[in-house]
Amino acid sequence: MPKLAYLGPEGTFTEEALRLLDPTAERLPCANVSAALNAARAGEADGAVVPLENSIEGAITTTLDEFAWGEPLLITAELLLPVQFSLLARPGTEIPHIKRVYTHPAAITQCRGYIARELPDAVVVSAPSTAAAAQEVSLPGSPYDAAIAARIAGEHYGLTELAGGIGDRSDTVTRFVKVARPGGPLPEPTGSDRTTLVVFLADDHPGALLEMLTEFSVRGVNLTRIESRPTGDGIGRYFFHFDFEGHIGDARVGEAIAGLHRICGEVRFLGSYPRADGRQPQIKRGTSDAEFAEAGEWLARVRAGRVQ
Amino acid sequence: MPKLAYLGPEGTFTEEALRLLDPTAERLPCANVSAALNAARAGEADGAVVPLENSIEGAITTTLDEFAWGEPLLITAELLLPVQFSLLARPGTEIPHIKRVYTHPAAITQCRGYIARELPDAVVVSAPSTAAAAQEVSLPGSPYDAAIAARIAGEHYGLTELAGGIGDRSDTVTRFVKVARPGGPLPEPTGSDRTTLVVFLADDHPGALLEMLTEFSVRGVNLTRIESRPTGDGIGRYFFHFDFEGHIGDARVGEAIAGLHRICGEVRFLGSYPRADGRQPQIKRGTSDAEFAEAGEWLARVRAGRVQ
Amino acid sequence: MPKLAYLGPEGTFTEEALRLLDPTAERLPCANVSAALNAARAGEADGAVVPLENSIEGAITTTLDEFAWGEPLLITAELLLPVQFSLLARPGTEIPHIKRVYTHPAAITQCRGYIARELPDAVVVSAPSTAAAAQEVSLPGSPYDAAIAARIAGEHYGLTELAGGIGDRSDTVTRFVKVARPGGPLPEPTGSDRTTLVVFLADDHPGALLEMLTEFSVRGVNLTRIESRPTGDGIGRYFFHFDFEGHIGDARVGEAIAGLHRICGEVRFLGSYPRADGRQPQIKRGTSDAEFAEAGEWLARVRAGRVQ
Amino acid sequence: MPKLAYLGPEGTFTEEALRLLDPTAERLPCANVSAALNAARAGEADGAVVPLENSIEGAITTTLDEFAWGEPLLITAELLLPVQFSLLARPGTEIPHIKRVYTHPAAITQCRGYIARELPDAVVVSAPSTAAAAQEVSLPGSPYDAAIAARIAGEHYGLTELAGGIGDRSDTVTRFVKVARPGGPLPEPTGSDRTTLVVFLADDHPGALLEMLTEFSVRGVNLTRIESRPTGDGIGRYFFHFDFEGHIGDARVGEAIAGLHRICGEVRFLGSYPRADGRQPQIKRGTSDAEFAEAGEWLARVRAGRVQ
Repeated sequence: MPKLAYLGPEGTFTEEALRLLDPTAERLPCANVSAALNAARAGEADGAVVPLENSIEGAITTTLDEFAWGEPLLITAELLLPVQFSLLARPGTEIPHIKRVYTHPAAITQCRGYIARELPDAVVVSAPSTAAAAQEVSLPGSPYDAAIAARIAGEHYGLTELAGGIGDRSDTVTRFVKVARPGGPLPEPTGSDRTTLVVFLADDHPGALLEMLTEFSVRGVNLTRIESRPTGDGIGRYFFHFDFEGHIGDARVGEAIAGLHRICGEVRFLGSYPRADGRQPQIKRGTSDAEFAEAGEWLARVRAGRVQ
Repeated sequence: MPKLAYLGPEGTFTEEALRLLDPTAERLPCANVSAALNAARAGEADGAVVPLENSIEGAITTTLDEFAWGEPLLITAELLLPVQFSLLARPGTEIPHIKRVYTHPAAITQCRGYIARELPDAVVVSAPSTAAAAQEVSLPGSPYDAAIAARIAGEHYGLTELAGGIGDRSDTVTRFVKVARPGGPLPEPTGSDRTTLVVFLADDHPGALLEMLTEFSVRGVNLTRIESRPTGDGIGRYFFHFDFEGHIGDARVGEAIAGLHRICGEVRFLGSYPRADGRQPQIKRGTSDAEFAEAGEWLARVRAGRVQ
Repeated sequence: MPKLAYLGPEGTFTEEALRLLDPTAERLPCANVSAALNAARAGEADGAVVPLENSIEGAITTTLDEFAWGEPLLITAELLLPVQFSLLARPGTEIPHIKRVYTHPAAITQCRGYIARELPDAVVVSAPSTAAAAQEVSLPGSPYDAAIAARIAGEHYGLTELAGGIGDRSDTVTRFVKVARPGGPLPEPTGSDRTTLVVFLADDHPGALLEMLTEFSVRGVNLTRIESRPTGDGIGRYFFHFDFEGHIGDARVGEAIAGLHRICGEVRFLGSYPRADGRQPQIKRGTSDAEFAEAGEWLARVRAGRVQ
Repeated sequence: MPKLAYLGPEGTFTEEALRLLDPTAERLPCANVSAALNAARAGEADGAVVPLENSIEGAITTTLDEFAWGEPLLITAELLLPVQFSLLARPGTEIPHIKRVYTHPAAITQCRGYIARELPDAVVVSAPSTAAAAQEVSLPGSPYDAAIAARIAGEHYGLTELAGGIGDRSDTVTRFVKVARPGGPLPEPTGSDRTTLVVFLADDHPGALLEMLTEFSVRGVNLTRIESRPTGDGIGRYFFHFDFEGHIGDARVGEAIAGLHRICGEVRFLGSYPRADGRQPQIKRGTSDAEFAEAGEWLARVRAGRVQ
């Protein structure tokens, strides 16, 4: 039974994601994304589950930066989890009593409409996670009257759900990934895979991004996400996260990644893994594995001087 | 004397930026980025100053999303401000006494090394801004022992600086922008300008990003920043912020923006303004205003059937 | 009644093309392509009809080079003419008697199979045109026994058709163009137009051709023909003829041509004229005249600082 | 001692090229380019020397079409030969006596100025080659008074040189290639090589040429020549000849050619051989053999799940 670290405490959306990704795993809650990933790196856990992006908030930059700068980890699975927020309080609390609300900044953003409408006079304070907010609110003597968090967090910490589904949108989704220490074999290609890379530029010349995208497009590899992140070396210096269709074992994907490796300063491979949405890529003419293999054999014959 | 709203309270890095951008302006501190921008939109202020990105943290996503979704505003100036963090406490506090630290999450990230080294046992709690943290710490009875914030915040709220320059890097910079309601003339081109756009895709087909970048590159316009942000319509749907060299009044820039407008779902112009770093673009052969004008006249002659 | 010069003598395929392009025109046969074009340039004729390319032979390089280097002329119409070759001889001649055949090199190529099969022992000699060959053969005392030319040439010069349709392919087509001195208005756009350009590179750097093609593709303009021709300045130095869909009066075409004019050494416009095949271009999203006009107005508003 | 077929008769520029390419070879003159290539194909000769392009005339289309459609041959060497034309006549002839001149059409074009100036009243008749013209003029009873050909042809056929260097330009150059039957090893890479391909489109969609050029450019392979030729299937259907820098044994060249093979209908390899001008390619960052090898090894490691 594997042990998986995750962004805790118990009751976070990440725990929910972990249970869905690996129902039988032992769970190790950690204080934050970095701690969860470090637990996996250090061998205290066999892997970790962390959020990568949210359909409202965008990228979880801590996760992106950990993947780029920390000791290497490989993504082995992803999950898309609908996110539903609840207003949670100690039993006996009623909405008109709520003066101080505690929750994660992402939840503040995503429940902005509800807060303005139903809690116009409340002070809203940032918490490190929604579950941490619930935990804090559950303590007797907490300065906070309510938390915004997942319903599961309320159950966990003995809070009452005063209102459910309070997000401004009902279709908010968070994408979680499961990671492991590198070293073992990669997940097998399934025909519906995604690959994630971090790419640092060799030198930041005009057109560098266009060149990188051309390495993908010339081989028929479709991008599904691009994120720029600062390198830390001053405004105007960025590196990139790319998600794209296909598996590094696919010929077209391998050649594209090798192409990036040649022209870029550094390429860090973050994994090839089954897509959560099960979508199949459209393979452009001339870019299937069979066509790559045939072209390679043809080239070998021609180089050997044999009739074509 | 113009009145400018900004991300307050007094003592924030944003206030420092505002003072440098417009030393004589009247200052209106606001609770958060959205409030500052709304003050400008509503006419309570003549404009606003807000952070856009940080060389460690990356984009300030609230600012990006406000620019994309809120009532339109135009950037009229930018400023690069070196960011120095100090550890601030009520007079009499000493470092070994510090059990609870209050600061903005960005400061937590940027001072990670110092915290791990000097305050290994302290609990660090997220605050809405570094200045708000200083303000809170200055209150008698605050549950926090120290704040991490700008020195100016310490002076403002009567705190002692226990340590200065505690960021992991000494060269961290934040880019601030000054915005105004649209309607007046744009800032004049200076020869060293930057333009910012938000672009929504018409339909999210493979290669859409490459096509957008080609609209720039074919006219010799160099990108300086690209940020993807979720549209809110589920994982995998993004829109883009672009910064690039030049002024919308430049022929090459205007034609590129009009090209994007034609092929994209929506282009929102966020302003053309002098670059803070004063760097001049390298004008690629055939893309100067004079060359565009000459080509336009030549085309008109040819269309009229006149000898070329 | 206009007078049109053409590649003579009477009986050439070019005469046939001229009759189809302008049935009522007065016809001025000329010794070669250059002479026909010069007659138009000098005002001895109102225009000229010359061959541009053949579906077997390829480009008529004399025509290409005249268009590129000679005094400017504008193409105003094109025609696709199926080409049928006949074996023609003085009355009384029979195939077994034929020892010396006279014809244009293009006809030699295109009738290679017939010659090898039916006239294996004949010497085949190059003539300046197929009609000139027929004319020569018609002279008493000619050293040649037969000509390969159009049937019309046989009728014209009193020769007997010994065999018809002797080309290796039955679907050979020659493309002819009608040209006029520039100065008048261009042909009106019809919705099914073609435009022809000559482009000289400014400096022959790697990627120059890719840059030129990108000026077309970024504006949705499809090439239909590209020909490289030597500049005369040594092996490895070329200029280009381009045919593409659309009319210079179309916004997308005009902007593409102006773009080439800006980045290239010299662009010579050779005309916009109705396509002989009547095919309509597929207008890519964002590249119609209406979309260009709307984008131009939008850009003007944005530049003026008005709300978008 | 190898035997090489060439475009004869004796005295052609091609013979001169052959002598320079292979001074000791036995020479087999042939009636035309096709005959020379067929002699090599049939084993009557060990190879052939034929002209490929001229700096004034452009491509020798017979050669291009033979390479594309005929039984495969491989180019093993190239030569650039300055071309000098002489006016040659039977001993005793003087320039004022010349009424009929015989020469190849290319020579007519290239000596246009001299002919107009010095032989304004002469009739100029097309010959299959310049040497054939000299041979014909050397016959007693020839209807022609003079030939324009290489001086060597005059020496060969006993003609007097009435004028030398009569071409309009003194720097005209013809590029010749030596070909052999495929089957043996290719010429070794020298660091200054050229590769020649014929490419047929799979389907003639808009942008097909741009896609082909991108296969080269993305791997840093510079084109040196492109020629379009009709496929024979009607106006508007073309295939392409490409010359580019590098050897098929180079990693970047091999990958580009394999890429074309994948996306195109048919790619015919015509050879990799030393450049006559000895120019070295500029290897773009990331495209050297060493960089390709390193990237391949890196990719293999990453695919195996090993730490990067």
